[in-house]
Amino acid sequence: MQYKAPLRDIKFVMHELLDSESHYKTIPEFEDTDRELMDSLFEMAASFAENELSPLNQSGDAEGCHFNNGEVTTPKGFKEAYKAFCELGFPALSAEEAFGGQNMPFSLSTVINEMVGTANWSFSMYPGLSHGAIQTIEHHGTDAQKNTYLEKMVTGEWSGTMCLTEAHAGSDLGIIRTKAEPNDDGSYNITGQKIFISAGEHDLTDNIIHIVLARLPGAPAGTKGISLFIVPKVMVNEDGSLGDRNKVVCGSIEHKMGIKASSTCVMNFDGAVGYLIGPENRGLQCMFTFMNVARIGTAVQGVTAAEYAFQGSLAYAKDRLAMRALSGVKAPDKVADPIIVHPAVRNMLLTQKAFAEGGRALMYYLSHFVDTVAKGNGAEQEFADQMLSLLTPIAKAFLTETGLEAANHGVQVYGGHGFISEWGMEQNVRDTRIACLYEGTTEIQALDLLGRKVLGSQGKLLANFVQVIEQFCEEHKDNDEMGQFIRPLIKHLKEWGDLTSRIGMQATENPEAVGGAAVDYLYFSGYVTLAYLWARMALVAQTAIAEGTTESAFYYAKIKTAQFYYAKLLPRTTTYVQRISTGVEPYMSMDVEQFAF
Amino acid sequence: MQYKAPLRDIKFVMHELLDSESHYKTIPEFEDTDRELMDSLFEMAASFAENELSPLNQSGDAEGCHFNNGEVTTPKGFKEAYKAFCELGFPALSAEEAFGGQNMPFSLSTVINEMVGTANWSFSMYPGLSHGAIQTIEHHGTDAQKNTYLEKMVTGEWSGTMCLTEAHAGSDLGIIRTKAEPNDDGSYNITGQKIFISAGEHDLTDNIIHIVLARLPGAPAGTKGISLFIVPKVMVNEDGSLGDRNKVVCGSIEHKMGIKASSTCVMNFDGAVGYLIGPENRGLQCMFTFMNVARIGTAVQGVTAAEYAFQGSLAYAKDRLAMRALSGVKAPDKVADPIIVHPAVRNMLLTQKAFAEGGRALMYYLSHFVDTVAKGNGAEQEFADQMLSLLTPIAKAFLTETGLEAANHGVQVYGGHGFISEWGMEQNVRDTRIACLYEGTTEIQALDLLGRKVLGSQGKLLANFVQVIEQFCEEHKDNDEMGQFIRPLIKHLKEWGDLTSRIGMQATENPEAVGGAAVDYLYFSGYVTLAYLWARMALVAQTAIAEGTTESAFYYAKIKTAQFYYAKLLPRTTTYVQRISTGVEPYMSMDVEQFAF
Repeated sequence: MQYKAPLRDIKFVMHELLDSESHYKTIPEFEDTDRELMDSLFEMAASFAENELSPLNQSGDAEGCHFNNGEVTTPKGFKEAYKAFCELGFPALSAEEAFGGQNMPFSLSTVINEMVGTANWSFSMYPGLSHGAIQTIEHHGTDAQKNTYLEKMVTGEWSGTMCLTEAHAGSDLGIIRTKAEPNDDGSYNITGQKIFISAGEHDLTDNIIHIVLARLPGAPAGTKGISLFIVPKVMVNEDGSLGDRNKVVCGSIEHKMGIKASSTCVMNFDGAVGYLIGPENRGLQCMFTFMNVARIGTAVQGVTAAEYAFQGSLAYAKDRLAMRALSGVKAPDKVADPIIVHPAVRNMLLTQKAFAEGGRALMYYLSHFVDTVAKGNGAEQEFADQMLSLLTPIAKAFLTETGLEAANHGVQVYGGHGFISEWGMEQNVRDTRIACLYEGTTEIQALDLLGRKVLGSQGKLLANFVQVIEQFCEEHKDNDEMGQFIRPLIKHLKEWGDLTSRIGMQATENPEAVGGAAVDYLYFSGYVTLAYLWARMALVAQTAIAEGTTESAFYYAKIKTAQFYYAKLLPRTTTYVQRISTGVEPYMSMDVEQFAF
Repeated sequence: MQYKAPLRDIKFVMHELLDSESHYKTIPEFEDTDRELMDSLFEMAASFAENELSPLNQSGDAEGCHFNNGEVTTPKGFKEAYKAFCELGFPALSAEEAFGGQNMPFSLSTVINEMVGTANWSFSMYPGLSHGAIQTIEHHGTDAQKNTYLEKMVTGEWSGTMCLTEAHAGSDLGIIRTKAEPNDDGSYNITGQKIFISAGEHDLTDNIIHIVLARLPGAPAGTKGISLFIVPKVMVNEDGSLGDRNKVVCGSIEHKMGIKASSTCVMNFDGAVGYLIGPENRGLQCMFTFMNVARIGTAVQGVTAAEYAFQGSLAYAKDRLAMRALSGVKAPDKVADPIIVHPAVRNMLLTQKAFAEGGRALMYYLSHFVDTVAKGNGAEQEFADQMLSLLTPIAKAFLTETGLEAANHGVQVYGGHGFISEWGMEQNVRDTRIACLYEGTTEIQALDLLGRKVLGSQGKLLANFVQVIEQFCEEHKDNDEMGQFIRPLIKHLKEWGDLTSRIGMQATENPEAVGGAAVDYLYFSGYVTLAYLWARMALVAQTAIAEGTTESAFYYAKIKTAQFYYAKLLPRTTTYVQRISTGVEPYMSMDVEQFAF
């Protein structure tokens, strides 16, 4: 499938919905980012994604990565595409200027990441993981460490990884075993095995800088005994030139369901030289910044899956002929009607559209808070941080799960052809399946949302967001055309509060109640959050139509998609409410031994 | 993953829930089928599935089929397994005795198909498709045709296919183009291309008998102009020996998402010799029997996906350690608790169990009606036929969709490991994805259910089944322990009737209303149908416990799974009811041109 960047909708969200230009003016470092600059950047990224990355997406999946004696070769064309990506300055957009970055707002790089990721998910993993390593060094590295690594990472000459997971320790990082033993020169010897390391080994760059979680001798057990280390693949000499090969080797790459052109590596550290970054035993705390940003990146991947599925499905639904419409022939000159006439097909298309465009709005909305957290100050910064705390787990879990749903609809719209590789729809399902797992599974996000964020803040974080939505409802309560959205929104806000109190009370009696309700609560929260953004988008569209737009098809489609969302997707909340009302007992009453077959 | 046949549950459903022995006694041809015979057959099939087929499941997926110049080679081990399968007499179980079959009840072969299919879905496609061809010839062939083909097909020496789909014609068979031109000797020359032909070419048998849909010269347009032909791969001489190669060749095999060890072929008929089977232009009618049985077979595949996922997830959930239970440490001697302590993991396991065991009960229940339709008579036969008409589209769509959900939970329980091929969970998702597409998509089943079966019978078919359930409720209304199931069941029965009337009325105003409601209606029907079977299973379990069973863990698990189903899965119906209440307008109001991005 040939990807086409949805520039009209991207601009709708950035300019019309979120007024990014005004947002950037509130942050001194970003005040020069005007609409013209944004649009030129979007168009450059769109062109690169469409022309360089999209053509490598299916071929990369078919070929996969090659492993040979510790070395990994990426699929045909990836090396050239990566070179072009670096030449366009994309790895450096949001990095600090001091090290060659362009210091652009995170919200802008989010737009570009969306286009890159939709065109070629696997490709996006290579710079994507680098980004995490760059951020870690920017935030926690010494000046010497920054000077040694950052510039070459920012230009893309070197890449980076995050080495967290071990075979027995995924979500539960507290039980990792990799050891760091101090050397006399202040460095450490790192020994252990890490798995699922994206871009752990590949042929795109001359060096790979691993950020590794490990335990110092005598470190406390659990999460409070983990430290962070920089472990370069190739040692870096004082003058910046490359030295000897470090003792870190890729043992194998995984055979997996999707993102096959992204190398997922087993990395063996066999007394590799590493350098402590950040304070001893505070490695997990140092990772938190990165983890939140990584979760936002993964949430965007959910949007890419929905967008990709929608584009593929739409083309097919307009083209493919089967059956006649129940209300009578629509295409009398053809042997059958195009399947877009059938309500069941429209249901799938509109679901994809509602998730893709709603998800885009949510992610860009969130990314503006990231800008403010990074470079704003005062009460605004604190508020943005709180909004992010609440909305990140919702976005990560809800958008990756709905992305998977949308991808599956993509297969379904194609009928039997959806199962065949050549159309790209089945690859989309395989690629996006990882997003509900990595960077914390849906279940982990749900516990984070309900346990840590909502109940952990005594409801404060939720109250912030509810107030934002209430204010929106209040402002537009006299707008007749908005009543269809505002009435259900107010009803659901009340329900959200009631649900939260009810679970809070259940939890005082039985701590498992939080675990029992968390996933349903997360979905409920996700549907209400997206309802808020769809109401806002409908308002923008109504205003444009009232003002006499020349693009009425675009704006009417927005309003009708909002109506579809409220009529057909928001009702899913009723099931989550009912499930929560039956409590945790139906999960816990069965003894472990009774689980059998 | 090593499959283990769930013999305890299979016997529970066959003997305790459905009392198959008594059922067989009502049909003269089957009256000798006693419990001993059944159990020995189940154990033989279990042993074969576990020891011969399961070990080839993941290797077959990894290797796939090989195509070379019109010939297809199946993966390593398939040929030997197929030979063993034939030697055990499995292809012949339900075929007629006159041609070497064992004339066993369809319900018995359903049990065996479940085991074969769970152990190795791809393998099961080869005999599975043969079965359809055998049935077609049994029902519609001349004596000469039966004599020529059936015996070798029944022994498995030859296999068969069903050649329906063309590239432009999937669900809409009315628009197929393959032509049949009469020859002077009464045979026909068949010309055209068929796609998605399972087992269209392979190396397991000496001959392949294709059943092909094609049009005679001057045949009416649409579904009323389609005839059925027998087209052997290799011509059969009068004495039964093999003659020349017929002009039907496999053009290529598909690269697809799953069931990779099953060859999915493009078949090119280039003036191939074919023989009319059944009356001219009545080909689709002749196919109906086969299609219903094929849909039941596919519904069973949904159960296999749920069962496979449950087995894999359960083993992992008991073994994998991560985090501590929210209510306190459960495994103090380990670094973390096994993940089965977490409610979110239990939710996934219980969902899998509820769909696997509930689906098994539904499929065996249905298969008993097939027995009666095939070999019973009078009012019972008519009633069974009506029940099958109603329940087949529900079972096909609902069980394949819930099978896919269960398979996805399988990946999720494993976390990141679920995405890796070696565990088998991702293959299960890829394999089972086809089941929602082939033999009529979920959307086609939904239209069949609501449009043809329920509304088309003026509600008669639904009333039959509702009466069966009402009678059950009435019989056990004084059983206190059954109230928890019977009360919600009665409520949902009433809702089912109300929904049906409401849609019927909407449809008189707008024919699209049927298409708009159909998929939601199907899911609603599926959840209520399974609720009935779970209530019945709970009753059997309660009785066994009351009578002092020695297997109380098994029976308590049944009751608790039923309770879980009613508390956590049946509430999904509320969303479907709400979606139906908002009508078809939200799907249809958007103009085709407004569908864009």
